[in-house]
Amino acid sequence: MNFSVEVKTSLKKGMLNPEASTIEKALALLDYDVNNTQTINIIKFDLDAESRDEAYNQVDQMCQKLLCNPVIHDYEIDICGE
Amino acid sequence: MNFSVEVKTSLKKGMLNPEASTIEKALALLDYDVNNTQTINIIKFDLDAESRDEAYNQVDQMCQKLLCNPVIHDYEIDICGE
Repeated sequence: MNFSVEVKTSLKKGMLNPEASTIEKALALLDYDVNNTQTINIIKFDLDAESRDEAYNQVDQMCQKLLCNPVIHDYEIDICGE
Repeated sequence: MNFSVEVKTSLKKGMLNPEASTIEKALALLDYDVNNTQTINIIKFDLDAESRDEAYNQVDQMCQKLLCNPVIHDYEIDICGE
């Protein structure tokens, strides 16, 4: 079966996020006043697996090995069957 | 009123996405076979505005001026009132 997978990675709470603070400062320079800026990355792909559980396990391994750094990132896996 | 805003930016269809193809190749080297890899960036922040329409207009200007490159990016704005 073909599954469409979405992996959301974001920095763990308390980690400094230089990208977000740069965006906030740059917006302030343009006179936009925004707060609590956060950034999230989404990686979407299609994956062939025998079952939803197998797909989930594979994606979880991918996250641990390559897609995220589990020390500093939180990740969330969404799987939709096709 | 305080609005919580989410801006999703992704490359327009047909644009080369080196980040996505690098991820796909790296996963292939680890024996995971995935297809149609895409990447999406989300920027979330809180914004003070008088109405939802005003908030939307401000965020649209931010996207045009700073958050996206309208030549190569598509963007989507989600606004939730608090």
